[in-house]
Amino acid sequence: MKINLRDQIPALQNKYYFNYGGQGPLPNTSLEAIFETWATIQELGPFTNDIWPFIYKEILTTKQIISKKLGVNSKNIALTENISSGMVLPFWGIKVKEGEELLISDCEHPGIVAASREFCRRNKLKLKILSIQKIKNLNDETIISEISKNLNSKTKILIISHILWNFGYQIPLKKISIELKDNRENSYLIIDGAQTFGHINIEEEVIYSDLYSITSHKWACGPEGLGAIYVSDRFIEETDPTIIGWKSLKKEQGIYEPADNLFHEDARKFEVATSCIPLLAGLRNSLNLLDQDTTEKDKSKTIRKLSQKLWYELNQINNIDLVLEKKYLNGIVSFNIENIEDKNKFVQKLGEKKIWIRVLEDPKWFRACVHQLTTEDEIDLLSEEIKNILGE
Amino acid sequence: MKINLRDQIPALQNKYYFNYGGQGPLPNTSLEAIFETWATIQELGPFTNDIWPFIYKEILTTKQIISKKLGVNSKNIALTENISSGMVLPFWGIKVKEGEELLISDCEHPGIVAASREFCRRNKLKLKILSIQKIKNLNDETIISEISKNLNSKTKILIISHILWNFGYQIPLKKISIELKDNRENSYLIIDGAQTFGHINIEEEVIYSDLYSITSHKWACGPEGLGAIYVSDRFIEETDPTIIGWKSLKKEQGIYEPADNLFHEDARKFEVATSCIPLLAGLRNSLNLLDQDTTEKDKSKTIRKLSQKLWYELNQINNIDLVLEKKYLNGIVSFNIENIEDKNKFVQKLGEKKIWIRVLEDPKWFRACVHQLTTEDEIDLLSEEIKNILGE
Repeated sequence: MKINLRDQIPALQNKYYFNYGGQGPLPNTSLEAIFETWATIQELGPFTNDIWPFIYKEILTTKQIISKKLGVNSKNIALTENISSGMVLPFWGIKVKEGEELLISDCEHPGIVAASREFCRRNKLKLKILSIQKIKNLNDETIISEISKNLNSKTKILIISHILWNFGYQIPLKKISIELKDNRENSYLIIDGAQTFGHINIEEEVIYSDLYSITSHKWACGPEGLGAIYVSDRFIEETDPTIIGWKSLKKEQGIYEPADNLFHEDARKFEVATSCIPLLAGLRNSLNLLDQDTTEKDKSKTIRKLSQKLWYELNQINNIDLVLEKKYLNGIVSFNIENIEDKNKFVQKLGEKKIWIRVLEDPKWFRACVHQLTTEDEIDLLSEEIKNILGE
Repeated sequence: MKINLRDQIPALQNKYYFNYGGQGPLPNTSLEAIFETWATIQELGPFTNDIWPFIYKEILTTKQIISKKLGVNSKNIALTENISSGMVLPFWGIKVKEGEELLISDCEHPGIVAASREFCRRNKLKLKILSIQKIKNLNDETIISEISKNLNSKTKILIISHILWNFGYQIPLKKISIELKDNRENSYLIIDGAQTFGHINIEEEVIYSDLYSITSHKWACGPEGLGAIYVSDRFIEETDPTIIGWKSLKKEQGIYEPADNLFHEDARKFEVATSCIPLLAGLRNSLNLLDQDTTEKDKSKTIRKLSQKLWYELNQINNIDLVLEKKYLNGIVSFNIENIEDKNKFVQKLGEKKIWIRVLEDPKWFRACVHQLTTEDEIDLLSEEIKNILGE
């Protein structure tokens, strides 16, 4: 069964791939589904009365599938272009007061960090950094305790990833949400789900956030240029849209009509304008293939088994420091090799053998990702080749 | 030659199409170019060291072609998802003072109008509407005179379309820019180019704006989900980015590094994060096909000749009011039929004959677009069928 899905994925035919957290490979049939949608749009449209029912059905079907995976109502789902626009666009609409605080973990993507800084600068908020990057033996209790230390009556926003992109550690979303809301009820929990969707089951957890941003093009193995957000009812009611287009509006009304009730009262409030509709069919097809390949129940077992194998093999190699304890593993295995000065060169050397992992910038160490598609042979090859390069 | 290009466009095979201003039909070879790019990305990547030179080349080549069409430097071009995100995202970064004014024409898209209202509300600016919609015998002088009446020492931003989407009137961009800057040097001219790119030659004019937003998917007949903006050097220097992602940043730096010089010093400052790169090849292919089909020099002649033919034929029909004088025509022919109550039903009736025009909402009238791809037979058919429905 697994062999069949790999056969459908051209990117896996000529390389040994460990960068699912960067971008997942696109199956052939997903590309075909995109192509067919384009053909249908051209046949019915591109801009005719006949096209709109088709486009709305594409959007609704996709939102329904996403909302099921996220365990939320589809009216709380908006489609986006990528994780960053999903995270950043809605938070510009939060009503804040000068002197309030935004708390952001030190394991967030530099784009989100820069956007948070700019938001704080313009709104005269204090940006506080939640330090978890350097904690040895990280666990749920230490994370909660660090957060708790940083909360006070001015804390308005907490930004953190559900799975830390550099660590692979899965934060205790529900507990954090309770901690945050216990501190101040009208604060917002904003979650970067870049490393979760398509990777782990998040059906029970998304609901504890106020904003949760996902993408098609990483672990879900869908096309690039498509993402989605969950926004809570409270977030929809209490915040304003910022980048506005026809998709945010109830109707394309005239400039002289009353302008007091313009926006959709659901997540569409945060959508903008024309996007690439054919991508939706690609994502749906990829999700379906992944589901058919391994049941949700077996998936986490499979991925954990593979990542533990990789962890174990890397742990046999001198000089390799594994970042996370084995018991906390998911598909992300991060490690450092202290005595390697030029880490990019090391990745390139592996690349010359068609093996692809990546260097992270902050902290500067290596990340390998294993998915349900990964084979044991690939893992053996990766650890063998690391040994070879290190001369062990 | 023209016959050949039409043959490559599936959407034109089964209908008579007059909605280029809504969405242009996609040629087969553009779709193929998109697919080839996807295949290349999967072969080289999707996330490996081998992929980045390819992606950067795709972006640079596309920006160079766009910048040539816009008559500007490619460092002043940023890629976007659509017209609205291109217009709205950058203007949130303009530094404004309470009480300043934003002047917007009453012929702008409802999405831009709503975004302008929200910008003014949050920043305590006054929104002023430039009334040109109802002016009879509109010409450059009346537009300049209307603008001039509305300018004062507090005018900070003027938003107007280069070709008014409801009228088809091409505003005198250079003259308006001079008028605006003569009034107040540090004001900004923001131009919606939805109806120009791929339709008329704008090479000499874009430079007079501070922000000019275009899309791939209308007159340029490229894919949906891709657009671009020109931003002036002054706009880049003086304004802040708002929706920020890895594309806005000089590098993916650590959260503990100094954060005083984060953003690109060119238009990339306004780009966000991962987008659908394969679309770029589709746009380039479509632009190339349009250029090969008709030279830039003949293009406006061809389009004008066709729109004048349509104007003339419609003018023969009782009850039809043509919105624009014949001498001001480009590819957009707008008209009203006063005694038709249900305008959507009228469009649907034409649609049943495979003829597609659209109703505009503000003001409520009809718009037909003719492109270099339109045939004289299509025009005859449209005017004949309108006559039939009206019972003339």
